[in-house]
Amino acid sequence: MTETTEAKVDAAQTAALELANESDEARQENLQAIADAIDERRAEVLEANEKDVEAAEEMLEAGEYSQALVDRLKLSDAKLDSIIEMVRSVAGQEDPLGKTLTARELDDGLDLYKVSVPIGVIGTVFESRPDALVQIAALSLRSGNAVILKGGSEASHSNRVLYEIIREATADLPDGWAQLIEAREDVDRLLGMDDSVDLLMPRGSSAFVSYIQDNTSIPVLGHTEGVCHVYVDDAADLDMATDIAYDAKVQYPAVCNAVETLLVHEDVAEEYLPDIAARYAEADVEMRGDEATRSVLDRDIEAATDDDWTSEYGDLIVAIKVVDSLESAIDHINTNGSKHTESIVTEDDGRASTFMRRLDSASVFHNASTRFSDGYRFGLGAEVGISTGKIHARGPVGLKGLTTYKYHLEGDGHLVATYAGEDAKPFSHEEFDGEWSP
Amino acid sequence: MTETTEAKVDAAQTAALELANESDEARQENLQAIADAIDERRAEVLEANEKDVEAAEEMLEAGEYSQALVDRLKLSDAKLDSIIEMVRSVAGQEDPLGKTLTARELDDGLDLYKVSVPIGVIGTVFESRPDALVQIAALSLRSGNAVILKGGSEASHSNRVLYEIIREATADLPDGWAQLIEAREDVDRLLGMDDSVDLLMPRGSSAFVSYIQDNTSIPVLGHTEGVCHVYVDDAADLDMATDIAYDAKVQYPAVCNAVETLLVHEDVAEEYLPDIAARYAEADVEMRGDEATRSVLDRDIEAATDDDWTSEYGDLIVAIKVVDSLESAIDHINTNGSKHTESIVTEDDGRASTFMRRLDSASVFHNASTRFSDGYRFGLGAEVGISTGKIHARGPVGLKGLTTYKYHLEGDGHLVATYAGEDAKPFSHEEFDGEWSP
Repeated sequence: MTETTEAKVDAAQTAALELANESDEARQENLQAIADAIDERRAEVLEANEKDVEAAEEMLEAGEYSQALVDRLKLSDAKLDSIIEMVRSVAGQEDPLGKTLTARELDDGLDLYKVSVPIGVIGTVFESRPDALVQIAALSLRSGNAVILKGGSEASHSNRVLYEIIREATADLPDGWAQLIEAREDVDRLLGMDDSVDLLMPRGSSAFVSYIQDNTSIPVLGHTEGVCHVYVDDAADLDMATDIAYDAKVQYPAVCNAVETLLVHEDVAEEYLPDIAARYAEADVEMRGDEATRSVLDRDIEAATDDDWTSEYGDLIVAIKVVDSLESAIDHINTNGSKHTESIVTEDDGRASTFMRRLDSASVFHNASTRFSDGYRFGLGAEVGISTGKIHARGPVGLKGLTTYKYHLEGDGHLVATYAGEDAKPFSHEEFDGEWSP
Repeated sequence: MTETTEAKVDAAQTAALELANESDEARQENLQAIADAIDERRAEVLEANEKDVEAAEEMLEAGEYSQALVDRLKLSDAKLDSIIEMVRSVAGQEDPLGKTLTARELDDGLDLYKVSVPIGVIGTVFESRPDALVQIAALSLRSGNAVILKGGSEASHSNRVLYEIIREATADLPDGWAQLIEAREDVDRLLGMDDSVDLLMPRGSSAFVSYIQDNTSIPVLGHTEGVCHVYVDDAADLDMATDIAYDAKVQYPAVCNAVETLLVHEDVAEEYLPDIAARYAEADVEMRGDEATRSVLDRDIEAATDDDWTSEYGDLIVAIKVVDSLESAIDHINTNGSKHTESIVTEDDGRASTFMRRLDSASVFHNASTRFSDGYRFGLGAEVGISTGKIHARGPVGLKGLTTYKYHLEGDGHLVATYAGEDAKPFSHEEFDGEWSP
């Protein structure tokens, strides 16, 4: 029986209303059941994954796929261990639901509570790592949301088995809370369902995320690109600046919070650039510099073009530019950056504060590597993703980003007529410590 | 000189970066300056408004405009008083910016602060009341956002003068923080500017808000419709239920939080319906009932059609339906409602809790009129609007809805390499009471 995408989304919408009221305990138990089931059914998962990997290796030989893609796709017992561990850790996260965010007395006996609740139905489209499916399903369940899962077609066998395991392990949850869709056309159908899908969370290339944003009226929480900057101020501790610029590029260059452009104040360029260039050279980092940088480095490095200032390399490549002031660094970043993460290295707190206040980026750091921009490192628990938009959730997004709120008002026959007109009774509007308890 | 929409939005974007760092005091002083300037230039405003009103009266005679539109358009000294008062009250609201929402130690000397900041550039399209322009400009300035203002063409003379007054009164703020656009084509241009406009806030008919949502990839904060419900439970205090159903419909029927459908439990229908029908009849409320309701009321009222259950009348009309259980009431609302505001009247707290938890609406009330669903009554201060979406802000939206946040990380040369690999140092991740101070 093949269900249509419409039927799947309808079922998810019905399930979402019930799932929102499952207890914290039930959601935790079902997550543990998913972890147990994956553990018990390892052989099935690895067998399905083997099919995906074989097909991908053929594509690799045909020059269609990269080795990196095949590596990401491949599961092993060790990878399954870490997937199981991840699900148990999501179960252990603090419940994001049912929190009273504000309690306010409007008048005697009329109390308003702002209470955190799930968003509803979340549509997700993600990359070819099969662990992504498990992670997204786990985060959705922890936050009480129904979820539509669309993974990469390269991982289709793995995804189908993992989805079946999750569905069977959570048989006592509202039927249909998690749905798998597989075809690209189904994604296009999903984009039109603004009456039943509350939020889209695409992961993948920035071109893909932009495609989603341009083709739906459903709100999108996503990450387009990370063109991150480190600015070495003239008041910097230059050894610290070398360590930070090195860590931010070399520690893991493929990720969105790695530095792409290094900005250096002209007064320290002569002293700083040879040091960082030597460190980068050790790690085989390709440097592309502006005229001033190349002149200090005896033209040992390539010239940067205009495109370099807006490039997310995701690789061991860095663009370097000499600037004449803190102001120029700020202007360069606000003009060329992607509002992701920027760091200033300086011993001058006033200049750090100016940098942090004046930049329109989600994360602004002082004397720290851009690589800290991450939900786990920030202490948000499991990371849903990183948002480069400004609405709803910004920067690294934790479980809280998968919630919204409802207003609960408890009265005793209160009428608005009492508070209107000539003899209007005034409101008290006093916040108090209190929880709405169901 | 006519500037293009692109040039205006560019100027707003540049201004937004500076406006975000204006002090609380500067924003308050400029709001007072706007209030003073409107007070001083009343004659100019009234003269311009007279032109709009004359043109509208011609359209009224030609049968193109309604009397209500002409009334909303017309300014008077008394209306100007209340506009001036409103601007001063926005100035007096608590500063929504620069609040440390969370402070968390990640490790010794590595402190993360989540700080509230403006969103950036907000595009607004609003109805023909000229006070809307002043209100939206004031709320944007209080929250540090640059704003693009597009009012109704009927109010164009009034809007131009009010805009000039605001611009001149705030000459010491970043130039271009508020921009006026006038043509419908300029709105369509605005919808395409997802690189420079951060949020759209349309007000008006639900068809218009839907048009905006369908034609832009910019996030939209808006209100489509309000199909609100009152459910009279079998455990209700029936006198209270009559008062609430009356207040919710009659106190001000033209607004989105007025009740449109009254649901009555079958066990109390015989006793309740004649009472509420008598009260509604006194106020000339037109009732449309299902078969069971009509049977109790001796077929004195019209039969409701399927369309009635999803209609926002905005008028002295109410649909009435008898339901056989709390569950049926919940299902009816989740299926037919617009997720705005619903109220249960019951003396049974357990049933109230079920109703409030199971409904997927922004505001759910117990023993209170739906008309309380409003930013002022909720104690949110000035109301930006009401959102029927679930993302970013839900229900009545105050100044906080015009803010987002940034992460500020203060380190001392911290590198991610320290926290990765075999000898990874653990994070402390402890929240503390502290404010990021610039």
